[in-house]
Amino acid sequence: MPTRRLLALVEFDGTEFEGFQIQKRRRTVQGELERALFQVTGDHVRVVGAGRTDTGVHAAGLGVHFDTAWKQTPPVLLRALNAVLPNDVAILRVVEVPPDFSARYSAKSRAYRYTILNQSVRSPLAERYALLVPELLDAAAMDAAARCLIGQHDFGAFGTPPRGDNTVREMYAAQVRRDGGRVLVDLEANAFLYRMVRRIVGTLLLVGKGVLSISGFRDVLEKKRRAGDSVPPHGLCLIAVKYEE
Amino acid sequence: MPTRRLLALVEFDGTEFEGFQIQKRRRTVQGELERALFQVTGDHVRVVGAGRTDTGVHAAGLGVHFDTAWKQTPPVLLRALNAVLPNDVAILRVVEVPPDFSARYSAKSRAYRYTILNQSVRSPLAERYALLVPELLDAAAMDAAARCLIGQHDFGAFGTPPRGDNTVREMYAAQVRRDGGRVLVDLEANAFLYRMVRRIVGTLLLVGKGVLSISGFRDVLEKKRRAGDSVPPHGLCLIAVKYEE
Repeated sequence: MPTRRLLALVEFDGTEFEGFQIQKRRRTVQGELERALFQVTGDHVRVVGAGRTDTGVHAAGLGVHFDTAWKQTPPVLLRALNAVLPNDVAILRVVEVPPDFSARYSAKSRAYRYTILNQSVRSPLAERYALLVPELLDAAAMDAAARCLIGQHDFGAFGTPPRGDNTVREMYAAQVRRDGGRVLVDLEANAFLYRMVRRIVGTLLLVGKGVLSISGFRDVLEKKRRAGDSVPPHGLCLIAVKYEE
Repeated sequence: MPTRRLLALVEFDGTEFEGFQIQKRRRTVQGELERALFQVTGDHVRVVGAGRTDTGVHAAGLGVHFDTAWKQTPPVLLRALNAVLPNDVAILRVVEVPPDFSARYSAKSRAYRYTILNQSVRSPLAERYALLVPELLDAAAMDAAARCLIGQHDFGAFGTPPRGDNTVREMYAAQVRRDGGRVLVDLEANAFLYRMVRRIVGTLLLVGKGVLSISGFRDVLEKKRRAGDSVPPHGLCLIAVKYEE
């Protein structure tokens, strides 16, 4: 049966998932997607994601691809899948792509946002998707430090590669800004190392609290100084995976 | 032991609660607050809320009062309670009030917001706190209809009173506006009948979809026509209970 390759953009609330990638007896996004595809198409379809996300990390636009003999249009498949997927995962878009397209290897960049709720009091309605930091943060200093990350660098100070690969990545954008009671950290790179965003944010928090200077932050990047601790996953969202048009 | 009366403003994510009011073997906001007060003060303290909220309804500022022999300042109590309360409920503020103050009877008004996510595709990250309505809504027509509600009216068409009391309430503000992909319904009244906000929103949705005219909406208020169905609770949030300064 002739198949075609489809790219789907997926949004999910990561709270109740143990990350993207299938694991036995664990609830994962890949597992839910493959279950929905089986329910709708009757075929066991393997889903390939743009990357793994850790337990508890959210996504507003994770790219995944799969091959299917599905005959109707992609929008019909989108509606059918969304009708059977659970509440915390949905497909935003489905488009046909060439057979050699890969959600992982064809990706040009990944954009992440880490949301910090910078206020003294807890907020149950905001904290599902944000980390509460009660100390007033210097967002301008954090922004100045973040800009040191732009360009091609060895990011080994902030994370480990999947299989001992090289740790050089290219950061396209790095920005920190205050938005009312929140501080938003936006990072976009060709790819990220394991835990890299969360360790960068943990180190930027030291800058925001006045514990680490901007040149101290640059020292961390240059491995002259240890990075800060990784921040928790619930403030992190994979905003978009970008592909060539 | 001399006690004093305290007013606390409470925020909670209603998803995992069966409403505010204590019920046997059910998880309720009142139950969690009384448990936290017992843990912190060692006393069995009865908490009185400004009103009941239904299962699944959220709150950003529900007023509650209680009497306690607690000797330290209210801010110290606030921190102690927030340290033992679960993730989905927190206290935003605690202030001392006169002994005859009541979170329920001293309240001047209650303000509710219902959030509609008005887009064709599901969004797991937004739908925890919003109702997805795929048909494009006419927010201006909904707003014009909502304004008919302002003033003193018999709201019996939209809800039932707790114990067969009268159904006259005073609506201070009623507004519908579009905010990007969302449509926000804001209502403030001296008090609300059971299910009143959710049935008003259900009826306003008929106006937004062009099924009911603005004069048809007025006919519903005047009981010449049946109200729309109640909308689900997860889009509803009790924004604030207002008290005299």
